[in-house]
Amino acid sequence: VRTGNLLSLSGAGPTWGGKAMSGQVGAEYTVEQGYEAARLCTLNLLSATRSALGSLDKVKQVVKVLGMVNSAHGFSQQPAVINGCSDLLVQLFGQSGRHARSAVGMAGLPGNIPVEIEIILEVE
Amino acid sequence: VRTGNLLSLSGAGPTWGGKAMSGQVGAEYTVEQGYEAARLCTLNLLSATRSALGSLDKVKQVVKVLGMVNSAHGFSQQPAVINGCSDLLVQLFGQSGRHARSAVGMAGLPGNIPVEIEIILEVE
Amino acid sequence: VRTGNLLSLSGAGPTWGGKAMSGQVGAEYTVEQGYEAARLCTLNLLSATRSALGSLDKVKQVVKVLGMVNSAHGFSQQPAVINGCSDLLVQLFGQSGRHARSAVGMAGLPGNIPVEIEIILEVE
Repeated sequence: VRTGNLLSLSGAGPTWGGKAMSGQVGAEYTVEQGYEAARLCTLNLLSATRSALGSLDKVKQVVKVLGMVNSAHGFSQQPAVINGCSDLLVQLFGQSGRHARSAVGMAGLPGNIPVEIEIILEVE
Repeated sequence: VRTGNLLSLSGAGPTWGGKAMSGQVGAEYTVEQGYEAARLCTLNLLSATRSALGSLDKVKQVVKVLGMVNSAHGFSQQPAVINGCSDLLVQLFGQSGRHARSAVGMAGLPGNIPVEIEIILEVE
Repeated sequence: VRTGNLLSLSGAGPTWGGKAMSGQVGAEYTVEQGYEAARLCTLNLLSATRSALGSLDKVKQVVKVLGMVNSAHGFSQQPAVINGCSDLLVQLFGQSGRHARSAVGMAGLPGNIPVEIEIILEVE
């Protein structure tokens, strides 16, 4: 949904090409697998952005990232997981890809996906 | 709180007419009861919106919904619960009720309520 | 990150002067200790705000607070914890410190900190 120059995207999971992931980070998935999952979430968010705007060139600034990690009891490395999103955004957009972020642990996510990410973008 | 044409509402629970709900979805409550709880949260949000704006007619667009489900271990049907909010918003506002959404599982909520929802609206 | 007159801050924890807190509220920490942790998070957020803006005088309104409490199983007093943030904001900014808020329970937080808070401010 766009309001003014802000584009708010629904939370995206790591589904890709019909392949689904199911499980918690710190149990079924390692931090490294969580990082890859966060990267897939981000690709899905970018795909939705391109659908909404026609082109990723219209992204002026990534404003805010809420990175939600389906966390096994005692798991506390959420930032290392959500870096899979942040690293990709900075690789793609440079300084404009830098963002305010929270990386936090959830008790559960839809379909038991390991990571879900929502972002807000400033757009042309 | 209103800033420019955006109205941010505090998270609302399913309390209604003094009746409180207490428990987790997937344990004390079924998905269907969670759906009803999400509907009650939304009615409370709409009530707060009317108080703030004087009329619901001033809502131009629902921008963003964060649906938080107090989730029993292993519960993963958060979207089916938060549909109780989304369905009502679309029933009431039509296309303007469509929104960016995340529906996620929390480890706990105030007073052990089963669902809490916060929304951001674009208003006149 | 600033976009228009909105300043979005990354989630902040209760680290202060190199001293770290580690544990869940309702287990390792009491509500009172959680309240103090929320106050420390807020001081860190205000410090980041001053770094970004040069002065806290440029804060026009606190818009939104998401207070995330690392919650032991069954803990449901998240609002009493996040009051450590809300009380400080209102003490400092008066009416401009009042905000839309959600205070919710997380399954885990980075480094097992007890509280993490993110805020959005309207600024000059």
